Amino acid sequence: MSHRTILTTLAVGLAFAIAGGLEDNANAKLPIVLKDQGSFMVGGTVIETPGTFDPSVFPSPPDGQTFHGDHAYVQFQIPPDARDLPLVMWHGGGQSSKTWETTPDGRDGYQNIFVRRGFATYILDQPRRGRAGNSTERTTLTPTTQDQFLFNVFRLGIWPNFFPGVQFPQDEESLNQFFRQTTPDTGPVDIQLDSMVVAKLFNKIGEAVLITHSDSGSRGWFTRIKNQNVKGIVSYEPVQFVFPEGKDLPPPILGSVPQFEVPLVDFEKLTQIPIQLVYGDNIPDEPTGTNIALDVWVDALDAARLFVDTVNAHGGNAELLVLPYVGVFGNTHFPFSDLNNQQIADLLSAYLKEKGLDKRRHKQNEKHAMH
Amino acid sequence: MSHRTILTTLAVGLAFAIAGGLEDNANAKLPIVLKDQGSFMVGGTVIETPGTFDPSVFPSPPDGQTFHGDHAYVQFQIPPDARDLPLVMWHGGGQSSKTWETTPDGRDGYQNIFVRRGFATYILDQPRRGRAGNSTERTTLTPTTQDQFLFNVFRLGIWPNFFPGVQFPQDEESLNQFFRQTTPDTGPVDIQLDSMVVAKLFNKIGEAVLITHSDSGSRGWFTRIKNQNVKGIVSYEPVQFVFPEGKDLPPPILGSVPQFEVPLVDFEKLTQIPIQLVYGDNIPDEPTGTNIALDVWVDALDAARLFVDTVNAHGGNAELLVLPYVGVFGNTHFPFSDLNNQQIADLLSAYLKEKGLDKRRHKQNEKHAMH
Repeated sequence: MSHRTILTTLAVGLAFAIAGGLEDNANAKLPIVLKDQGSFMVGGTVIETPGTFDPSVFPSPPDGQTFHGDHAYVQFQIPPDARDLPLVMWHGGGQSSKTWETTPDGRDGYQNIFVRRGFATYILDQPRRGRAGNSTERTTLTPTTQDQFLFNVFRLGIWPNFFPGVQFPQDEESLNQFFRQTTPDTGPVDIQLDSMVVAKLFNKIGEAVLITHSDSGSRGWFTRIKNQNVKGIVSYEPVQFVFPEGKDLPPPILGSVPQFEVPLVDFEKLTQIPIQLVYGDNIPDEPTGTNIALDVWVDALDAARLFVDTVNAHGGNAELLVLPYVGVFGNTHFPFSDLNNQQIADLLSAYLKEKGLDKRRHKQNEKHAMH
Repeated sequence: MSHRTILTTLAVGLAFAIAGGLEDNANAKLPIVLKDQGSFMVGGTVIETPGTFDPSVFPSPPDGQTFHGDHAYVQFQIPPDARDLPLVMWHGGGQSSKTWETTPDGRDGYQNIFVRRGFATYILDQPRRGRAGNSTERTTLTPTTQDQFLFNVFRLGIWPNFFPGVQFPQDEESLNQFFRQTTPDTGPVDIQLDSMVVAKLFNKIGEAVLITHSDSGSRGWFTRIKNQNVKGIVSYEPVQFVFPEGKDLPPPILGSVPQFEVPLVDFEKLTQIPIQLVYGDNIPDEPTGTNIALDVWVDALDAARLFVDTVNAHGGNAELLVLPYVGVFGNTHFPFSDLNNQQIADLLSAYLKEKGLDKRRHKQNEKHAMH
């Protein structure tokens, strides 16, 4: 694959661009200072049962009553003198915003790291997940034993063995914490609903950079298509992509997880912003046929390459960063909470700087006024 | 009810004890400074499906795999030079820790207020709720239209009218935010499981004060019985209580929600710490018979009085603070997020101070060393 060479060259260049001075406040021993913090719900629908509300019965029957659901839940932290563009962080499948908080072994996650670096952060639970649990559609939750499958598909290793040099803590309690991060869908999964709700978040907060992970990757593309306040997207290990209608789609992941077609006018909205896709280590070059959880990533990376090429062929600004190609080894499906997540965060800082997404207009104006 | 007079007198005395200088850092315009913040899971169980794990299928069948569930999810914030005893805040029924964050109209909730006042805060989602969604038992979630019932039972008013002078913002968006705070149980409700898990939290963090609300009230009593690191309990509008075995129990709330009997040796654990019960406004003196959601609180308040009397008859230190009896009017079932929640927080600060639960040993030692 010749484009791999080109993308590798780009990625190496990017990695080498990292230097000191990226972090404003990156020393974990310093206090975290917040101008404000809080939470709110955004988007959602209301359903109603016909009839007349009866307040004389406990609990009142549903007749004549409403139910609010299908919103997202958002927690924000704003440091003093924040950079212009907040970071909106969106968890992947089976996860909540816990993803972005403390790592399984108790270190700073991306929420802490980037608020220390002067970014306002918005971490969200998508509709029908976590603290945004109210779904207007019914569902049944059945506990399903799948930890060992997740161990493999999240590329901690090949169960029960960790990969040599994997950037995941190998003590029992860290793995316990990691498995407990998963939390179920409390309603049917709906990519268009989710991206519509997060597009409303971007109406509320204005221009920002969107950080997605895995299953929220596809939702991120649709969010940008719905709202041009998304000024850049960095996506960790996305699996699904959008392509212009009428072009060849890459084959479905493992023959079953499809890619998406969108009208060309929508696809072009993805060519107007910087996009970076980031993948970790231990993705085989070819499908194994025996460890199907690894083969997901072979297919996903092929689709990612085609997505990057297609965006750029339409005049876009997308790039693929495969961490081991730039000498960063051992990362799992969760690079932002891996043992080397400060290094992964440095790569994100470098990318945001390179693309002009980390500026402080306020400060620049101040400097200008001083001349 | 003659004990009402006595309790009112106590409560009035407490309210009048409030003075300036309680807050260290209460000005909402000042930055929030944190020595650390993070999140973790605590407690929980693991279930396993017999058989052999098969990594060659996507997704792998459940055989030979495990599932982690029934833990709590905890977020903590620790200010520099924190007071000795953190505040552990536990939401009520149908709620997550959103309860303690930003109010429906966007003001500081208890999490912000008390971290500004120098307390470490731990807010938690109980097992099978919010970000602690994984349940080892199956459940079906059916969206149930009940907003109007909640409006009444949470004493915002008598639907569709707010109570005159109610301490709840009456704009449409605040009510929308409030309804969206609700999030479903993702598994069967289990008071003993919940209190066992939160008792483990108190093992992990050590001595602390427990703040409960409504449905977590009962869980708080059982948590203290399981762990003597609970050094005080302030409970907002609890409905269920524990009583020593063999004594008369108050009648079930509305004839259906029972009170609990525990062995005397367990009950006595509740006599060893300060306990305050706090109720808001608009609770009728007698059942209405027509607005059943209000009648819940008539019964709950009767049970609360008997609980306080029983604790104190066994040598305990419990008190009942009915806000309108001390001239604080209009509070709903959520006093800590009502329009006057800074005033409600002042009452909590005063109580913690009076009971010696807000001390800084560190500072005292320092002062001692300076003599």
